[in-house]
Amino acid sequence: MISTKWAKLIKSLQLKKYRKAEQQFIVEGEKAVLEVLASGWQVPAVFATERFLQQHAAAIQPAQLVQVCGSDELVKVGTFNSNDAALAVVAMPQWPAFHAKSEQWTLVLDNINDPGNLGTIIRIADWYGIRHILCSPDTADCYNPKVIAAAKGSFLRVQLHYLPLAEQLTNSKLPVYGAYLGGENVHQLQLSRHGGFIVLGNEANGISAELSQCISRKITIPAYGDAESLNVGIAAAIICDNLKRLTASR
Amino acid sequence: MISTKWAKLIKSLQLKKYRKAEQQFIVEGEKAVLEVLASGWQVPAVFATERFLQQHAAAIQPAQLVQVCGSDELVKVGTFNSNDAALAVVAMPQWPAFHAKSEQWTLVLDNINDPGNLGTIIRIADWYGIRHILCSPDTADCYNPKVIAAAKGSFLRVQLHYLPLAEQLTNSKLPVYGAYLGGENVHQLQLSRHGGFIVLGNEANGISAELSQCISRKITIPAYGDAESLNVGIAAAIICDNLKRLTASR
Repeated sequence: MISTKWAKLIKSLQLKKYRKAEQQFIVEGEKAVLEVLASGWQVPAVFATERFLQQHAAAIQPAQLVQVCGSDELVKVGTFNSNDAALAVVAMPQWPAFHAKSEQWTLVLDNINDPGNLGTIIRIADWYGIRHILCSPDTADCYNPKVIAAAKGSFLRVQLHYLPLAEQLTNSKLPVYGAYLGGENVHQLQLSRHGGFIVLGNEANGISAELSQCISRKITIPAYGDAESLNVGIAAAIICDNLKRLTASR
Repeated sequence: MISTKWAKLIKSLQLKKYRKAEQQFIVEGEKAVLEVLASGWQVPAVFATERFLQQHAAAIQPAQLVQVCGSDELVKVGTFNSNDAALAVVAMPQWPAFHAKSEQWTLVLDNINDPGNLGTIIRIADWYGIRHILCSPDTADCYNPKVIAAAKGSFLRVQLHYLPLAEQLTNSKLPVYGAYLGGENVHQLQLSRHGGFIVLGNEANGISAELSQCISRKITIPAYGDAESLNVGIAAAIICDNLKRLTASR
């Protein structure tokens, strides 16, 4: 059984203000819980079915509070429609302050609202070996359970930094590429060997006027048909794929 | 007010069996309804707010049944969380039977379950000028409201054909590329000038054993980081981008 005290805490962690106050968030589902347990991150408490605990006894640390419960309880306190495995309460990591490094690509998200899109972008960054994402303070919270679910285990390997973007980009000497309609074709880019920033804008409004002033080159995914636009997660993936193809082949 | 008879019909169209029986489906939201009204498709009925009808009077055809209603009614009968514009009941199009053509790329979906993924793939196909998608009979229904919403207007321009895939692919002389982990790197493909098929597999299980026998070349998106996999919509986008880059640049 999940104790009343913990049930209340877990539910509260679905809201950003409580996550911020507690500096904790939740991870749900067999695979993600196993990954976080193996990551070295602080996991104060695990709630799991008997089956999960029998199969993965070695994954649990002695210092962890463990409560055995039914899958119905996991569903009740968590956000998944079904979960017959586990839910973990995890302490937020403390990342070192961000410093742009030469020969490194960094994604920059200007007010990405949808948690699913943010999670997808984290997973894509991880696939393409991008270790840092800068987020405007109004971008969706990366510890939202929907972001964690969409990111799969990739939230463990990509560092998200919420900070005023214009300031950061203005102070950097690396090139700042922005995704627009009507920029340079990403299939034909001549790229800096020194890495840089890739800015992706809000789902409805694109890159803000303020941040547009920091963009050194506008880039575009060429269209061959009639769709008006691509989802921002899809755009992020295609741009990363082209960047890595161009820079890894030298 | 939406009449009881129509409210009942609209709600029933959220289920595949009633869509099949009626040969109709619903389209929701201002932009999508305007696109379907401008498409030439049969739209027997439109349910819209006064504001929508005033702003878009010219979009309505004389033969269409129109009922003025409140946005609360649109939300009640439809699937959107908010809709202050319109909902249309649309007759399913009758596409001509599929015939593979040389120099044409066709996507092939082997049991794609998630309606959001299917909608995303339809939008990507449209962006890349791919006109046909073959779907295994167990792939999500393309007239599911979630598919229509995720596809944006692209469902109007891409033809989906549900049919036994193995038979279709076995009978074709065009090459059949399958997305796998551990195939040829899509960045370095030497491609047929004659077009072909791109097979994408189920979200959890990949391409089925039966269909694997029809694959002439296994292709893979190269990874540069640690994520285990990419979402199937993301994979479709990256593969299409590479195909078009390679074939359009000759």
